[in-house]
Amino acid sequence: MASTASALKAKMAAQAVTHVMSAHNPLSARLAERAGFDGIWASGFELSAAYGVPDASLLSMTQHLDMTRSIADAVKIPVVADIDTGYGNAINVMHVIRNYEAAGTAAVVIEDKVFPKDTSLLAGGRQELLRIEEFQGKIEAARAARRGEMLVIARVEALIAGQGQAEAKRRGEAYAEAGADAILILSKQKTPDEIIEFAGNWAAKAPLVIVPTAYPQLTEDRIAEIGNIKLVIYGNHAIRAAVTGMERIFAQIRRDRGIHGADAEIVPVTHIFELQGVPDMKAREKKYLR
Amino acid sequence: MASTASALKAKMAAQAVTHVMSAHNPLSARLAERAGFDGIWASGFELSAAYGVPDASLLSMTQHLDMTRSIADAVKIPVVADIDTGYGNAINVMHVIRNYEAAGTAAVVIEDKVFPKDTSLLAGGRQELLRIEEFQGKIEAARAARRGEMLVIARVEALIAGQGQAEAKRRGEAYAEAGADAILILSKQKTPDEIIEFAGNWAAKAPLVIVPTAYPQLTEDRIAEIGNIKLVIYGNHAIRAAVTGMERIFAQIRRDRGIHGADAEIVPVTHIFELQGVPDMKAREKKYLR
Amino acid sequence: MASTASALKAKMAAQAVTHVMSAHNPLSARLAERAGFDGIWASGFELSAAYGVPDASLLSMTQHLDMTRSIADAVKIPVVADIDTGYGNAINVMHVIRNYEAAGTAAVVIEDKVFPKDTSLLAGGRQELLRIEEFQGKIEAARAARRGEMLVIARVEALIAGQGQAEAKRRGEAYAEAGADAILILSKQKTPDEIIEFAGNWAAKAPLVIVPTAYPQLTEDRIAEIGNIKLVIYGNHAIRAAVTGMERIFAQIRRDRGIHGADAEIVPVTHIFELQGVPDMKAREKKYLR
Amino acid sequence: MASTASALKAKMAAQAVTHVMSAHNPLSARLAERAGFDGIWASGFELSAAYGVPDASLLSMTQHLDMTRSIADAVKIPVVADIDTGYGNAINVMHVIRNYEAAGTAAVVIEDKVFPKDTSLLAGGRQELLRIEEFQGKIEAARAARRGEMLVIARVEALIAGQGQAEAKRRGEAYAEAGADAILILSKQKTPDEIIEFAGNWAAKAPLVIVPTAYPQLTEDRIAEIGNIKLVIYGNHAIRAAVTGMERIFAQIRRDRGIHGADAEIVPVTHIFELQGVPDMKAREKKYLR
Repeated sequence: MASTASALKAKMAAQAVTHVMSAHNPLSARLAERAGFDGIWASGFELSAAYGVPDASLLSMTQHLDMTRSIADAVKIPVVADIDTGYGNAINVMHVIRNYEAAGTAAVVIEDKVFPKDTSLLAGGRQELLRIEEFQGKIEAARAARRGEMLVIARVEALIAGQGQAEAKRRGEAYAEAGADAILILSKQKTPDEIIEFAGNWAAKAPLVIVPTAYPQLTEDRIAEIGNIKLVIYGNHAIRAAVTGMERIFAQIRRDRGIHGADAEIVPVTHIFELQGVPDMKAREKKYLR
Repeated sequence: MASTASALKAKMAAQAVTHVMSAHNPLSARLAERAGFDGIWASGFELSAAYGVPDASLLSMTQHLDMTRSIADAVKIPVVADIDTGYGNAINVMHVIRNYEAAGTAAVVIEDKVFPKDTSLLAGGRQELLRIEEFQGKIEAARAARRGEMLVIARVEALIAGQGQAEAKRRGEAYAEAGADAILILSKQKTPDEIIEFAGNWAAKAPLVIVPTAYPQLTEDRIAEIGNIKLVIYGNHAIRAAVTGMERIFAQIRRDRGIHGADAEIVPVTHIFELQGVPDMKAREKKYLR
Repeated sequence: MASTASALKAKMAAQAVTHVMSAHNPLSARLAERAGFDGIWASGFELSAAYGVPDASLLSMTQHLDMTRSIADAVKIPVVADIDTGYGNAINVMHVIRNYEAAGTAAVVIEDKVFPKDTSLLAGGRQELLRIEEFQGKIEAARAARRGEMLVIARVEALIAGQGQAEAKRRGEAYAEAGADAILILSKQKTPDEIIEFAGNWAAKAPLVIVPTAYPQLTEDRIAEIGNIKLVIYGNHAIRAAVTGMERIFAQIRRDRGIHGADAEIVPVTHIFELQGVPDMKAREKKYLR
Repeated sequence: MASTASALKAKMAAQAVTHVMSAHNPLSARLAERAGFDGIWASGFELSAAYGVPDASLLSMTQHLDMTRSIADAVKIPVVADIDTGYGNAINVMHVIRNYEAAGTAAVVIEDKVFPKDTSLLAGGRQELLRIEEFQGKIEAARAARRGEMLVIARVEALIAGQGQAEAKRRGEAYAEAGADAILILSKQKTPDEIIEFAGNWAAKAPLVIVPTAYPQLTEDRIAEIGNIKLVIYGNHAIRAAVTGMERIFAQIRRDRGIHGADAEIVPVTHIFELQGVPDMKAREKKYLR
């Protein structure tokens, strides 16, 4: 546990920008690890999507925690867990934090919205913010509950809620003051201008985290130039890529009324075996099955 | 419950061939439903792969059952559940059957291998068969345990185990006699010859089920011509398509050091919203949130 | 599903008072069934206690739902599920309702407090009530979400929150008007006076439900005389009895430095076997194990 | 993790006999801890009983693991987990071991029976033993899979299976040789003679563990005199005490048609609050709720 948190800290200290990819199950996490991402984003949005329900506090903490534990067990890179609003008040947060820490996560992200939340990127979504003092209490509770050095990242939804730069800055600073290890700042504008402005005005010591879904033009190299932003989360590309792949192949199979054409388009079963660790299992069978 | 089982029966009676697509979560099931598949295969192989572990009785019944319940809840088409060897003996099977029936499955497939199983398609896998009488007891126990009309499909692994047509036929007939509603026959040859021969010799009343992974050339139209085969299961295409999609996009994002290029290759976030039922939720919010 | 809901309705129609006993696992439910209780209260308080955590929205919906499903599977009498505040807003309630209905519950109780809740009986607990209109929306959402006739019982916390009879009546009536099948009215006074007064003033058609923890002198016969109250929930006696039994025996074993003395005080292992259904399993083994 | 395993080792080294009490949920574990037991037995028998099913491999690994994790989180004393036959072969054992270690258990007990198992104490139960070499492979696999120093305890069922002292000794020694950290020897005779004889003949370095259910006269002081036995597991007293308590109180409530008489017999609700940690929560609320 301690080690994945410190691995994440070390990466964030050593690299200009650390990048984590969303995952909705251990396999997608393993693919991200192999592709070279620095860490995994155990995304509430992706898991909700995988279950076919809106990202609106419908999945339970248990469902997300169980998947996060499985993901953390399947990869060596650090896992950053999306715990939404913390599943309640400061007391719930303490319960949640201890569970996620025990599950092997390196960091958690808590957002300053009211439970039950709505997806931040949704046009017309409900975006009600918690009082600053109340959210500070949640951050302090999170810090008090952790036993090791798991990072507590505070997510500022003020720009999402249309409350402007000043309020976003005020909140970010208040959360940093309450002990947040990093501040995640989100915008749903189609350009990164809001984020760049926020980062430019940022003076607190806690580093910034962003999720550039709405402004994909913001490459890691540009992020490095902006400064103050140490972590970038790609928040939904695993599920979008998986859906794209499945829709294409499912349509082809129905069109062909068979799998002969589809087979050439997708990885063979043996590739899945390898991803599952079958060769390693076969080696262990030789050693231990008698 | 009764209704999905009878829907499956009705389809199998009305159509030359009924086709079901594998799924590893509710979203992949929903995509298969939209693409026009007749039903869903709640696959143990796909779920194991999604968890990054070999399909070797490592996932627990609870893990598979929970996912099957979520899948059955997410689609209207019938779900055929892969219950491996039934998680133990005839007594375990009775416990398992009641749980899967309550979870809303239309059919279950039990295989005649010894627990813990190994993947049938694996070259060099362990393929030990159960005694016929013992497996008959499991089928009878399954039938006795169900309360409605959920189908009990018996999976014959004799060809996989290299025991030849005669043994496969003997087993298939014995299982049909014990009350199996259908017989799944598997081959790992690269051509469908074994399957075609088996189907040609098949004289029992129970219909046949096949999984043409190793012989993709066997289209639904050819299957209809062969006769006796009423159900075809595409056993691993959802996970293979998802992996293909994710590997491609993950590689591109690392290559580009950003998501700008990848975004054009995948479905937009709004498409995921729609798959999650966000528009329906927004309509319900208008009605019930005050 | 339909059947346990209608069984509960039939009992409530036929009997002066219907009585349900709390349970924290299938075994305690089975003991209550054998003792002659009419139904089971799948209690959030008892389950929280069984997990050693306060009854303050710390356990997740999944944890409570899984236990409720197991309980409903273990008994024939109807199960009334405690779903606290419904795990969020009206949208969450719809999700929750469908899950509990599929789990086989006959009725659910939703309370009109703000999430995360605090135990009602706790001196100095946080007891913030939801706006009436918002809670009416939750009741209507619950009714819209159910597919069968599972009862939706609305729990009025106005007396607990110290808001007096008039507010309690206003809320009870508003909830009945919104379609609640019954109204649960709670008091934490040491005498049943508040409850008797409330029941005396009650004029709506929906029957009343009470939980006489704080006023144990209110026997079923007295409840029948009061009128309007059709269901009594014994909300915490299973866990209190279990704790009492375990504390006594654990202390004795430590005192004796052995189990010789304790054994005479507790049921034999064979009694547990019988409660587990071992004799029935042995009969099924004879039939199906070969 | 490491710490609970080493705490258990330290206790076993320092004390003549270390005693652990069975539990079926975190609350029963906490009661055992308060009563002064040295550790907790996360019992498969008790958990099966709590779910109302026979102890015959019906509960899944996930169900037992989840409860074990919750128990380990609720107490400070070490938890010894009952993993039955290891849920499959040596490969399954490796998967299981890693999960239980991550869940915070100090030791696991694996028994040398064939899956699915039957309760050892059951007259007429199925008691088929695994081949010695195969079980040695499982022990070696368990040792290879653990990352820390969690104890692997091998349970010898030879006396239960009626195969006599010589076979029991041969197996115990073979398992110790394969690396088992301790050997659990079980007898179902009504006197401890078999166990005393076994312990008297025991010459291997690994200490012995016993479960004196069938011979309650064997106090801890007598066990200390026998020698070689370092750990005693009280395997079913929590559930038997809980059942005894609930049966008595449920009967009284039905007899009284009310809870007035029962209340004097059981601990008050405030005692449950205290066991749940409500006072501690209230203190944390003062600090963090704003």
